[in-house]
Amino acid sequence: MLSRNQIKNITQLKYKKYRNTSQLFVAEGSKTIHELLQSQIKLHHLYTTQLYPEVADVLQTKISKTELKKISFLTNPNTALAIFEIPKEKKINDKKLIVALDNVRDPGNLGTIIRLCDWFGISHLVCNTQTVDCYNPKVIQATMGSITRVAVSYLNLEEYLRTSTLPVFGAFMDGENVYASSKLPKQGILVLGNEANGISDAIAQQVTQRISIPRFGDLKVTESLNVANATAILLSEFMRATIVP
Amino acid sequence: MLSRNQIKNITQLKYKKYRNTSQLFVAEGSKTIHELLQSQIKLHHLYTTQLYPEVADVLQTKISKTELKKISFLTNPNTALAIFEIPKEKKINDKKLIVALDNVRDPGNLGTIIRLCDWFGISHLVCNTQTVDCYNPKVIQATMGSITRVAVSYLNLEEYLRTSTLPVFGAFMDGENVYASSKLPKQGILVLGNEANGISDAIAQQVTQRISIPRFGDLKVTESLNVANATAILLSEFMRATIVP
Repeated sequence: MLSRNQIKNITQLKYKKYRNTSQLFVAEGSKTIHELLQSQIKLHHLYTTQLYPEVADVLQTKISKTELKKISFLTNPNTALAIFEIPKEKKINDKKLIVALDNVRDPGNLGTIIRLCDWFGISHLVCNTQTVDCYNPKVIQATMGSITRVAVSYLNLEEYLRTSTLPVFGAFMDGENVYASSKLPKQGILVLGNEANGISDAIAQQVTQRISIPRFGDLKVTESLNVANATAILLSEFMRATIVP
Repeated sequence: MLSRNQIKNITQLKYKKYRNTSQLFVAEGSKTIHELLQSQIKLHHLYTTQLYPEVADVLQTKISKTELKKISFLTNPNTALAIFEIPKEKKINDKKLIVALDNVRDPGNLGTIIRLCDWFGISHLVCNTQTVDCYNPKVIQATMGSITRVAVSYLNLEEYLRTSTLPVFGAFMDGENVYASSKLPKQGILVLGNEANGISDAIAQQVTQRISIPRFGDLKVTESLNVANATAILLSEFMRATIVP
C-alpha cells in the first residue's frame, strides 16, 4: 500500500523544482523503463503491477492498478512507473556535431529532438536554461528511451557559443539555402530556436552561418516549419554531408 | 443563445460518421479559421465571442465564452469555432511528387505531414481509407491552415499504386540509403506507412524502390524515426534533388 506521503513525493516530481531538489525523475511506459534499466542511469525505485525479474526486490514495490493511477502522469497509465536518479552532466565532446536549443518550450518537441539526435548519432545536446527540462515526464515519454544515449546540458548558451571555437550554424527563415550552401562540416554547433520566435537576438549574434530550409510551396505564406521537423531536416543535411562527396 | 440541439450538432462533428453525413468539419484557432476564410473552402457557420467584420452577419453568431466552452474540442478554447463545408476531392495531378499514406493513425502526425507537404510544394496527399480522417478536428488544428493548400484524397491505395505508371518509392527500415540512391525524380509517389508497423505487405508489393534514412547512432537500437520526421527528411531529399545538380 502506498502511503499518502509516498504518493505526494512521486507526483510532485512533475515539477522541476522537486526534481532539482531530489535529483530524481519519473519514467513510464515499458519500453522507456526497459531502456533506462539497461542504461547507466540508476534506478531509485520501481512501482509496478507485475514485479520485474531483473530488478532487486528492495528496489521495487508491487502496486495495484488503482494505486498506479494515483501516481501516474498519463491519462492511460501503463503497468509501471519508475523513478530514476538524474545522471551527472557529461563533458561536452566537441569533436562531433553538437545541437543547441534556444528557448524550446514544448516537451514533445524536445523529446522528438532528443530522439532525432539519437538517430543521427549526436551525442550531446546543449540547451539554454529557459529550454524545457529534459527530465520533465512528457519529455522522457517522447524520447522513447533515447534519453539514455544523448547527453543533455543546460548552460548559459550565449557564453558557451561565444567561447567556443567551433563554427556556429543557426536555423533562420532568411538564412542561406542549406541545400546550396558550402560543404557542411563534421564538427560544429547547430542552433535551433523557440517555436514561435526562432533564435533570440543575443544568440543570433553568436551565429557564424545562418542557414535555412527553402520553402517550395506558396512563398507568400509565412508559417514556418515546426522546430522538430526543421531539426530532422537539418540534421539529415549535416549527416548526409559526412557520407556523400 | 445556443440551443441544446445546436450544441449537439456541433460537438458530434468530432465523429467521422457525422462529418460524412453532414459534409461539415470544425476548425478552431484564429490562424486556422483566418486561413480557411481566405481559401476556397466554404464557411457554413462561425460561432465567435467577437464578430468578424469580414464575415456576413447571417453566417456568424456571437456567443459567450461559456457557450464556446460547451462546443469547443480544445481544453483551452480560443475565441471562435468555425464550421466549414468539406470540399470536393480534387483530381490528382501526377506531374508532381505525390505523398501516399498507408494506415497513418495519429491525428498529430497527419496534420504535421500536411504542413510538410505545404512547405515542400506537394499539392496532393493520397491516403488509404484506414488513415485518420483529415477533417478530424485534431488534424485540422495541427495543419495550421495548410489544409487549404494541400488536397487530400482517400482511396483504395493498393489499386491506385497498381494502376499508376509513376515510380513508387516506399520508406522502409531496410531500404536503399536515400543519400546514396540514384537521382530522385520530380514525378513519383512517396509512400509512408503506419506508426508502429510501417508499410503493409499489400502496399509493399506495389513499391518499385525501397528507400531508407540511414541511422548514424547506435546501430543495435531498433527504434525507428517518427513517421512525420521521416516524411520531413524524405521530402527534403526529393526537393533538394530538384535544385542541386
